[in-house]
Amino acid sequence: MSEKSNVVFIGRKPTMNYVLAVITGFSTLNSEEVVLKARGRAISTAIDVAEITRRRFLSDVKVKDIKIGTDQIERVEDGGISNVSTIEVILSK
Amino acid sequence: MSEKSNVVFIGRKPTMNYVLAVITGFSTLNSEEVVLKARGRAISTAIDVAEITRRRFLSDVKVKDIKIGTDQIERVEDGGISNVSTIEVILSK
Repeated sequence: MSEKSNVVFIGRKPTMNYVLAVITGFSTLNSEEVVLKARGRAISTAIDVAEITRRRFLSDVKVKDIKIGTDQIERVEDGGISNVSTIEVILSK
Repeated sequence: MSEKSNVVFIGRKPTMNYVLAVITGFSTLNSEEVVLKARGRAISTAIDVAEITRRRFLSDVKVKDIKIGTDQIERVEDGGISNVSTIEVILSK
């Protein structure tokens, strides 16, 4: 198992897809930690994923740490720089 | 100053309105802590508010803690119960 398999990048797919990825990380891959990473509007989804996983499926999973930050991304339209907020939610058994 | 003045509830207003409220909390009201509270889609805005405040205006403000949870709310349409994720971002000087 590579370290990468512990990171779930949250995007625009249905929330339950990511919940399933987290459950797979803990159960099938037997990880001790799974990290959710999200930017911008997907940040709300990341929190939903953490809460649904903990409350509905894996009650022994805890939120170990939450880190926030800012990424600078280049806009496609005009090549300018935009700031976008980021979050990392570290879930652990 | 009451304790309540330290809490900024994040909703659907422009992000900078909330940034201004946080700056007012620290500067005018001289609070040592300001707590951002948000639910659902406003969670992303809360992270934006924390990041913009820290990076652009008050560089001595730190993210002291971030707590997530779930609120149960009654739907207006059918009276059923929906779960909504919540976040508290505790900013301190």
